[in-house]
Amino acid sequence: MSNITSSPLLPLFAIACVLLLLKAQALAAATASMRGNLKKFVNPEDAVWLGGRHVDVDDERVQRIFRAHRNDLENFLPFFAAGLLYLASGASTIAGAAYFLLFLVARFLHTFAYLNAMARARRNSFTLGWLTTIAIMVHMVIAILARGSA
Amino acid sequence: MSNITSSPLLPLFAIACVLLLLKAQALAAATASMRGNLKKFVNPEDAVWLGGRHVDVDDERVQRIFRAHRNDLENFLPFFAAGLLYLASGASTIAGAAYFLLFLVARFLHTFAYLNAMARARRNSFTLGWLTTIAIMVHMVIAILARGSA
Amino acid sequence: MSNITSSPLLPLFAIACVLLLLKAQALAAATASMRGNLKKFVNPEDAVWLGGRHVDVDDERVQRIFRAHRNDLENFLPFFAAGLLYLASGASTIAGAAYFLLFLVARFLHTFAYLNAMARARRNSFTLGWLTTIAIMVHMVIAILARGSA
Repeated sequence: MSNITSSPLLPLFAIACVLLLLKAQALAAATASMRGNLKKFVNPEDAVWLGGRHVDVDDERVQRIFRAHRNDLENFLPFFAAGLLYLASGASTIAGAAYFLLFLVARFLHTFAYLNAMARARRNSFTLGWLTTIAIMVHMVIAILARGSA
Repeated sequence: MSNITSSPLLPLFAIACVLLLLKAQALAAATASMRGNLKKFVNPEDAVWLGGRHVDVDDERVQRIFRAHRNDLENFLPFFAAGLLYLASGASTIAGAAYFLLFLVARFLHTFAYLNAMARARRNSFTLGWLTTIAIMVHMVIAILARGSA
Repeated sequence: MSNITSSPLLPLFAIACVLLLLKAQALAAATASMRGNLKKFVNPEDAVWLGGRHVDVDDERVQRIFRAHRNDLENFLPFFAAGLLYLASGASTIAGAAYFLLFLVARFLHTFAYLNAMARARRNSFTLGWLTTIAIMVHMVIAILARGSA
């Protein structure tokens, strides 16, 4: 019986996760870096330390990167949980590879569209990632239940 | 030795995760859909595209769904991490099944209570899910350490 | 071939995750508790129920705990995903133990620095955790790809 470690999907899943997480880590760093460039900080101690201004709400440019980052993590969590259980379920390798690649592409498009204020492309790429994650969940649960009754 | 794939808890854990994640996905979609209905958008490009108004802060009705969604993900992450390690630990199947069902029920009650502004029910269901997650963590760590010293 | 359950790193990884998650759970509870102490609530039904005031934005003291909590979860998710795949990859135990301990220490320092408004220590501990997570990702992917070509 396959398991996570010996799943033929592990390399692709790991690479997809790493690329998605590196993008999220980059957005996290960009939020901090943009705050530093604008010299506006939500933490008063940062304003004192870095010689800037204390603000109650982040600048719109910081908020945009922050929202792209938050949206990434909100969507990565369901993808990671469902994808890992998909590996454990031993479901179809080809379908799994297609799901993982689709999600990867959708989320890179989403970040690009968000940062460039492309509303329609952002909505469509979000929807593609959202649907792909649901497909992974449904396929995985069916595979696990089918196995249980075999 | 049991592992995640061969754990008798895998089907129940997978179903619980999928139901919780589908609920979270539904809340994510509801946030976007409510913004569209109200025609108030935090991204100016959406206001232009969909013929609405740009606002600095989401409408209270959007924020409520958003907070329910965020609370879901904040609580799902510890549950998923602890639950998956619980499967890997080979700890009690009966206790694990009870934890997973309790958390599942608690979080559906929480969303229902949040969206219907039921303060006491929201607090109690949050606390139940919070305590269940801690029970999973403690039980799992004890099982892993006991195994190591066997 | 090693897998997650039989990985010699499982006990340390599980303990690190539990300590990090208990800290996050404590911050979640502290946010709610601080709202109760200040009698200021973002949900109007809480203000009615607990005899407080409804506010549009949380008090600065609540927001600080909330930001520390959010920062924890934003950083735990990449750590957990990368760390679990590291276990599945069968990469070096010694390096893995060093990464996990570094991340654990960095994140406890981060919370301490955040709650005590220590800007420089907060930045440095954040950076340490951020870099450690990236090291885990890179090391894990290389190990999985090397295994695939063996």
